[in-house]
Amino acid sequence: LARFSLIPRQTGFFDKFKKVAQNNLDGAYQLRDMLTDYQNVELKAKELFATEHHGDKIRHEIIAKLNKTFVTPIDRDDIDKLSSALDDILDIMEAAGDTFVLYKIEKPTPEAIAMAEVLVKSVEEIQKAIDRLEDLKGLKEFWIEIHRLENEGDHLAREAIAHLFENGIQPVDVIKWKDIYEYLESAIDKCEDVANILESIVLKHA
Amino acid sequence: LARFSLIPRQTGFFDKFKKVAQNNLDGAYQLRDMLTDYQNVELKAKELFATEHHGDKIRHEIIAKLNKTFVTPIDRDDIDKLSSALDDILDIMEAAGDTFVLYKIEKPTPEAIAMAEVLVKSVEEIQKAIDRLEDLKGLKEFWIEIHRLENEGDHLAREAIAHLFENGIQPVDVIKWKDIYEYLESAIDKCEDVANILESIVLKHA
Amino acid sequence: LARFSLIPRQTGFFDKFKKVAQNNLDGAYQLRDMLTDYQNVELKAKELFATEHHGDKIRHEIIAKLNKTFVTPIDRDDIDKLSSALDDILDIMEAAGDTFVLYKIEKPTPEAIAMAEVLVKSVEEIQKAIDRLEDLKGLKEFWIEIHRLENEGDHLAREAIAHLFENGIQPVDVIKWKDIYEYLESAIDKCEDVANILESIVLKHA
Repeated sequence: LARFSLIPRQTGFFDKFKKVAQNNLDGAYQLRDMLTDYQNVELKAKELFATEHHGDKIRHEIIAKLNKTFVTPIDRDDIDKLSSALDDILDIMEAAGDTFVLYKIEKPTPEAIAMAEVLVKSVEEIQKAIDRLEDLKGLKEFWIEIHRLENEGDHLAREAIAHLFENGIQPVDVIKWKDIYEYLESAIDKCEDVANILESIVLKHA
Repeated sequence: LARFSLIPRQTGFFDKFKKVAQNNLDGAYQLRDMLTDYQNVELKAKELFATEHHGDKIRHEIIAKLNKTFVTPIDRDDIDKLSSALDDILDIMEAAGDTFVLYKIEKPTPEAIAMAEVLVKSVEEIQKAIDRLEDLKGLKEFWIEIHRLENEGDHLAREAIAHLFENGIQPVDVIKWKDIYEYLESAIDKCEDVANILESIVLKHA
Repeated sequence: LARFSLIPRQTGFFDKFKKVAQNNLDGAYQLRDMLTDYQNVELKAKELFATEHHGDKIRHEIIAKLNKTFVTPIDRDDIDKLSSALDDILDIMEAAGDTFVLYKIEKPTPEAIAMAEVLVKSVEEIQKAIDRLEDLKGLKEFWIEIHRLENEGDHLAREAIAHLFENGIQPVDVIKWKDIYEYLESAIDKCEDVANILESIVLKHA
């Protein structure tokens, strides 16, 4: 009494997105751990790079699967957009981590650590949302929270940058820290981009 | 002799876009007024923030309406893109205004004021274009003008930034003003993004 | 025994994209030549500007053609996206060239020249890919190479910027060179955006 199905269930894409979201979370934890336990920084940056590389691999699997799949569970274009935006988050986290090494930063500021915490929370919300993507339900609470976190990150970044100018620190250090704060803020922003893509996918299937 | 219509006319979206465009214009005027009459700057930045917050509210109304509407007058995806790009303009204007406070800027430069004027003109053109969006006619003149203004803004920004390096001013002031010029230019650029979205909507319905 | 066709073959778009790709390549060569033979810099920046202006002209021809064409060989939306991304590459190259003039740069660094070389290679790969776009075949090798070049450009930019902080150079020079390296990297990044659009066009027609 086999059940036949002309269109095989395409759970594969959702599984792969879950892998990407988990991998991004691994990267966010690595970045936070680098900043809160600031030693062996070069090694930690290399581990974050390996995570980013692993993310690229899953992204290519998604693109390859898209090549071989005739009927996709969500629009081809949205699969592509979502995969690309998730990839961007990890790319920027990796660049942020690497910048601590390249700029020979001696010690992270409390502001950088606070921003890394907001980033971790945003990436956690995205992981929870991706976990529910297949049901297209209950995602709203996640993107509301991601928008709130983006506002918090934006506020932290502005305060942190303003603070640089108040402290009479060296101009080159202003340049360095501005870059780092902007990377961290930009990674949080990218989480909001993912939330917007999820929102638009849900709208289409509502 | 009632006339029935299976698909109710969806003028609601156009009305909401007109509200967003008007709100953006309010923000542009607030920013210009802050720079040309540079006093009570913190208060003025707060008023601009309130305008930005009001814009977010209308944006959420548009998204909510999209959720409840089966047949939209223009593509769902374009409603989303247009709404998002209009939102970006005001976000950046608000960030520009706030930066004057955060960086404790004593006095706006003539270059910043000139860029704010170009920004006001761009936002005015967008408002006029949005007013005509429902007819899908006569929009071309607006986006030609918006492209021209973008070129002007780009030129002003380049000159302003080059000028910073010629004046032997302090490096931290170079950093501050570069940020402000880049915000202003980026807000003008976003107006061009809106023009491109309008152009692509017209193309689809041509 | 004529063969009739209700839908005329629309090779026109491909021809125009080839023109854009060739024009971008002209711009990339002009930028490289400016940096490797650093004299008459203002004149060379003006020539690059003329090339950019010519690119805008072809872009408008594409948009106009889109207005008059009912059935397009690839999605209207993709024609618009591809044309816009190709335009971005040249815009940024022009801005990079102009920055050498505006910032009164005395001599290009070896890092800037290395990045310009990677940029030339990326633009060459795009031109080869656009040449084959009509067949939708054999494009994969190009975008793999473009992704590789983007990684190389990213690495070069990071090293170049880190190097600025190691050399004890003046803060304003750090600011200037960071800008130039970021323009060059951003132009290379835009080539990757084009590769991603080409990839997605091929996916749709696979």
